[in-house]
Amino acid sequence: MGKKLKPTWIWYPGDFEIWQHNKISLRREDRQCIFPPFWKLDNFYISVKFKKELNLEKPEKVSIFADGKYSVGLDRDMSINTDLRDTFIIPEGKHTLMVFAVNQTSIPSIYVEGESFVSDGSWEVSYSNCDWVKVGYWNLNDVNIPPSKFSLPKKEVLPVNVQKRDSSLFVDFGKEIFASIKLTGVSGSGKFTVYYGESVEEAESRDRCVLLDTCVVEECKSTYILPLRAFRYVNIDFDKDVLLGDLSALFEYLPLEYRGNFRCSNQRMNEIWETSRYTLHLNSREFFLDGIKRDGWVWSGDAYQSFLLNYYVFFDKDINKRTLIALRGKDPVTGHINTIMDYTFYWFLSLYDYYLYTGDIEFIEQNYNKMLTLMEFCLNRRNNSGMMEGLPGDWVFIDWADFDKTGEVCAEQILLFRSLQVMSDFSLLLGFEEKSHEFASLANELKSKIVEAFWNSNLGGFVTTRIDGKCSTQITKHANIFAMLFGLCNVSQLESIKKNVLLNDNIQKIKTPYFRFYELAALCELGEQSIVCKEILDYWGGMLDLGATTFWEEYDPSLKGAEHYAMYGSPFEKSLCHAWGASPIYILGRYFLGVKPLTPGYKSFEVKPNLGSLEWIEGTVPAPNGEIYVYMDNSTIKVKHTDYSGVLIFDSKIEPYVSSGKLRKLGENRYELTLDNPGYEYVIKYAKVHK
Amino acid sequence: MGKKLKPTWIWYPGDFEIWQHNKISLRREDRQCIFPPFWKLDNFYISVKFKKELNLEKPEKVSIFADGKYSVGLDRDMSINTDLRDTFIIPEGKHTLMVFAVNQTSIPSIYVEGESFVSDGSWEVSYSNCDWVKVGYWNLNDVNIPPSKFSLPKKEVLPVNVQKRDSSLFVDFGKEIFASIKLTGVSGSGKFTVYYGESVEEAESRDRCVLLDTCVVEECKSTYILPLRAFRYVNIDFDKDVLLGDLSALFEYLPLEYRGNFRCSNQRMNEIWETSRYTLHLNSREFFLDGIKRDGWVWSGDAYQSFLLNYYVFFDKDINKRTLIALRGKDPVTGHINTIMDYTFYWFLSLYDYYLYTGDIEFIEQNYNKMLTLMEFCLNRRNNSGMMEGLPGDWVFIDWADFDKTGEVCAEQILLFRSLQVMSDFSLLLGFEEKSHEFASLANELKSKIVEAFWNSNLGGFVTTRIDGKCSTQITKHANIFAMLFGLCNVSQLESIKKNVLLNDNIQKIKTPYFRFYELAALCELGEQSIVCKEILDYWGGMLDLGATTFWEEYDPSLKGAEHYAMYGSPFEKSLCHAWGASPIYILGRYFLGVKPLTPGYKSFEVKPNLGSLEWIEGTVPAPNGEIYVYMDNSTIKVKHTDYSGVLIFDSKIEPYVSSGKLRKLGENRYELTLDNPGYEYVIKYAKVHK
Repeated sequence: MGKKLKPTWIWYPGDFEIWQHNKISLRREDRQCIFPPFWKLDNFYISVKFKKELNLEKPEKVSIFADGKYSVGLDRDMSINTDLRDTFIIPEGKHTLMVFAVNQTSIPSIYVEGESFVSDGSWEVSYSNCDWVKVGYWNLNDVNIPPSKFSLPKKEVLPVNVQKRDSSLFVDFGKEIFASIKLTGVSGSGKFTVYYGESVEEAESRDRCVLLDTCVVEECKSTYILPLRAFRYVNIDFDKDVLLGDLSALFEYLPLEYRGNFRCSNQRMNEIWETSRYTLHLNSREFFLDGIKRDGWVWSGDAYQSFLLNYYVFFDKDINKRTLIALRGKDPVTGHINTIMDYTFYWFLSLYDYYLYTGDIEFIEQNYNKMLTLMEFCLNRRNNSGMMEGLPGDWVFIDWADFDKTGEVCAEQILLFRSLQVMSDFSLLLGFEEKSHEFASLANELKSKIVEAFWNSNLGGFVTTRIDGKCSTQITKHANIFAMLFGLCNVSQLESIKKNVLLNDNIQKIKTPYFRFYELAALCELGEQSIVCKEILDYWGGMLDLGATTFWEEYDPSLKGAEHYAMYGSPFEKSLCHAWGASPIYILGRYFLGVKPLTPGYKSFEVKPNLGSLEWIEGTVPAPNGEIYVYMDNSTIKVKHTDYSGVLIFDSKIEPYVSSGKLRKLGENRYELTLDNPGYEYVIKYAKVHK
Repeated sequence: MGKKLKPTWIWYPGDFEIWQHNKISLRREDRQCIFPPFWKLDNFYISVKFKKELNLEKPEKVSIFADGKYSVGLDRDMSINTDLRDTFIIPEGKHTLMVFAVNQTSIPSIYVEGESFVSDGSWEVSYSNCDWVKVGYWNLNDVNIPPSKFSLPKKEVLPVNVQKRDSSLFVDFGKEIFASIKLTGVSGSGKFTVYYGESVEEAESRDRCVLLDTCVVEECKSTYILPLRAFRYVNIDFDKDVLLGDLSALFEYLPLEYRGNFRCSNQRMNEIWETSRYTLHLNSREFFLDGIKRDGWVWSGDAYQSFLLNYYVFFDKDINKRTLIALRGKDPVTGHINTIMDYTFYWFLSLYDYYLYTGDIEFIEQNYNKMLTLMEFCLNRRNNSGMMEGLPGDWVFIDWADFDKTGEVCAEQILLFRSLQVMSDFSLLLGFEEKSHEFASLANELKSKIVEAFWNSNLGGFVTTRIDGKCSTQITKHANIFAMLFGLCNVSQLESIKKNVLLNDNIQKIKTPYFRFYELAALCELGEQSIVCKEILDYWGGMLDLGATTFWEEYDPSLKGAEHYAMYGSPFEKSLCHAWGASPIYILGRYFLGVKPLTPGYKSFEVKPNLGSLEWIEGTVPAPNGEIYVYMDNSTIKVKHTDYSGVLIFDSKIEPYVSSGKLRKLGENRYELTLDNPGYEYVIKYAKVHK
């Protein structure tokens, strides 16, 4: 007897993600009013057919289940066989089994149980009479839970404190959660209203809190499960004849393995890392959300950072894939992703990172046509000088910062340049050499144009924009950071940007944690880990001092009390659990533990640890099939890795001692050790170089 | 007090049609198995926003209803106002009212009641943050019947005969209907099964009839309303403990005005005309169906003919618009309409006819972008010689006929040529002169290529195809009829085609009523109404002789008994109520009454009556704002028209007498009378020219 095969629900690839994304995008509320996104939401194919080529050694019983209606065809291309229903026998030999599935309200999907075959990733699917592609699927293995009934798992959590007040309860769950309030044993008559708060003040503000639910107590109903909400506190008002019974919360979460770790000599830094992980986990769900309370939407710029954070803590490929599919939607492209020009480019950059970290070329291949049509949309919007300007309906974002975003914004052109490079790389990888050359020359041309147009050698940096052929003389950090990170600078330009822009106090400060991600990364690229260390402790530590259990959308130390919760002119509009608030995970893993892949899927990698101003650091970075452990203090470095081979790069005032491996001197005080012995703990004795 | 304004449900234009089309397309069954179409079905936008600019003289109360969820914004571009719900007051002055509406399962739509304004065609809608277009709407004026609850009206009809048999009933409704069987007063326990038949034989064939429904009698339920089915007869089997009660049928229909009429000296021809009208009416529903039993789908080639029939009997613009929208679906174009190359071209030709008959340029304008992208799809599929060949996934149909359809099929190129002309005309009309020139020169180039490639002067006609540069020497009527009808021939070619192809008994006969439409039209264009008269009486009369109450998909006089009902290898697969069976309506109105528009919307028209072999004919042809009445016998012609002006063209052996109007001699025996006096009955005395 062979191993029993396990069937899984299958569907048209991408449609599960698109349908779920729609559900989630339309969930946002503001005081019981819906608040839908302002970009196009695509829809799924309502009528598809599935195909599987069989070669059966003996007659075989097959059972078919569908989410929607279905019919079966056997060995007939377009035609159904009305004799084949639910369960039937397929004779031995070669056959083509077709299942026609339709569903107008949720994605048509099927689940097939045979003996030598089942529904799985080997099936093909089409929405017409040709264009067969591999099906989509995603661990939905329970026949009783088809895609339309899917939801993330839940666990019940109890409040840490309940205060009884006059005909109300004030409840604290101890930390921010994403959950449904559950009331059991409710009785009496009348209604009750639940006011939610990420802060005490919000939950107490009945007329300004963002989220609330009102229920009328029904006869014969004692259990009430309210909609999913983001909160730490709830304040429940109830009519005098209502008895509320017992209260808990059903916390809904994506199961994730905590594979990456970070610890160091500074306890506050450790707390920052853990709070970052919790913040990111709450926002890691069907997709990466920007914030669980607001917006609860999937934004490409926010996701770009979440993807990178994910590689350093959960290394969950699936959520990255789901998010990338949802963001891209379907053709035709009629506007930028989230309507934001830069957010379109981040999608290309995210795919590049995805391939670099995971090595999963199949996903790139599946999305290549969508990359082409999205890039075509961009290229068709270039002006006469070959650059992209905001057109009607476009949002040119880059950052909430004080600079002119009309005309040819330098930072946008850099992102386009980098996206073109990505297109060239992927085209070559997939065997489209001509396309690759096309994109490469577009990238190179644009690179020259950018330097020519925006580099101001008097000011020593890239200026913000050019409007009607006239260059601005304003310099902000944004374009300069991008120029650094995305390889647009020569060595002297790098030096100039460091001095004249990044470390120049006269240049406008970055105010958002969103762009601080890029700023801190850029500073680390320049070896300024000590500055970054202080920044993290001050900024993120400041939130912890104010009692944060998750990190915020924005933090301004100069504000007082409930002022912290206001945004966009509303008192509680600020998101207190925002994915981009978790960026220390990336900074500490990538630039302190210093781990990054050099070739796709970590087939080779680099470890370049840096203590910053810490006494010791220790941690693990996940990789596709294993992990990389790093320890460092002032005199010792330890590295252990599994399955891969890499290099350790470090500085030392003295000739270092290494327990094993090939050591090479790279320059003054700089050494490289090959790491080609998986499972072995390399120990290096060295002496720190103080700058 | 001004007149009270009536609100109507509004939605994203086209989405109602697309959603309904999906519902209807997915309804087909074959012995209780679903039978979905094999082409892409598009989906609606699930999140849209509506906008109305207001200038209120005084504060005004507004009430909002939605099919789905909604929020309101006032004077804020992208943002909702949580204070505005259900009913609220808008202050006087200028305002922008926005309604955000979402619905994942049926189209998001709204209904707004104000005092000086309501939801109507003046609102705009968008699925993103730009690209505003005028809303779609369609007489859904009842706030309680939103689009998701829409269905056509029903009337109850009773059987004309019920035979009680052993534990079964055999029921005859007297003629073909499209209805739900309704049983009231059902009691007992057990089940009953309803077998449907367009013929007695089908309803009696429990194991081969196409449609059947099984019901289990439930306690506390005495009324059973079954799904909509096409049938004349039902055979109901019931278990011995089941009492069936009373039986009727809820006949669902599109209310249509019978505006066009035709009567003549031949009673059988009158019966043919009336049965044609009934056949077309049954297939005229949310959209034009090919047949009410099979397929119950919307096919572009079938619809092309239904549109033309409609102009001569109902002149219902709305069903044409709905059908054209449903056929086209949404971008991106990934395949031909219904997967058939010729069916894509008929869509362009149908739009041309729509504009010619109705003069409705607004609809053309609304669809212009979709014409462009569909034509782009076609042009991108041309081969190196600039012609279209079937590519993988394409169905090259033209007709069920015996000729090679590989390579460059001549008939397809002619349809492409005509489609390019249509694109050129519409482009010019809408002010896109450059586009118009582009399409015109593509059309002209193609015309020359077609004549050069396919005209065989030895055989005196167009050959069927060219494969790998090698021309076929087969001639069938198809390409030659198209060449005639779509203006590809010079006078000598026309003469040659008439003699060598159309009236040549050695050329393969047209076997389908579908292509007979074109053949009869072509014969009439050549003045062969007498031949056509005989053809109609024989072919359609033959079906009446067999008891037809509606005309069939196909009729072969050589078959016997139940053989008539078989098709595609199944005994009852033939559709006995097929829209294209109704073509005498078009032939008699267009070529016997002889009425056609000369300029869009009948602003000018031609009446060129022809008796064929009939003694007298009389009838009315509807036009946008009125109608054209025509009477003709061997010595008298009468014409009356309303609102328009036209010309009467007729042949007479003698100098005719005319009661009024300007008479002009056009040639030997041929006269033209101007008709510029609406409401006046022109009487002409003439003498018939016998050929």
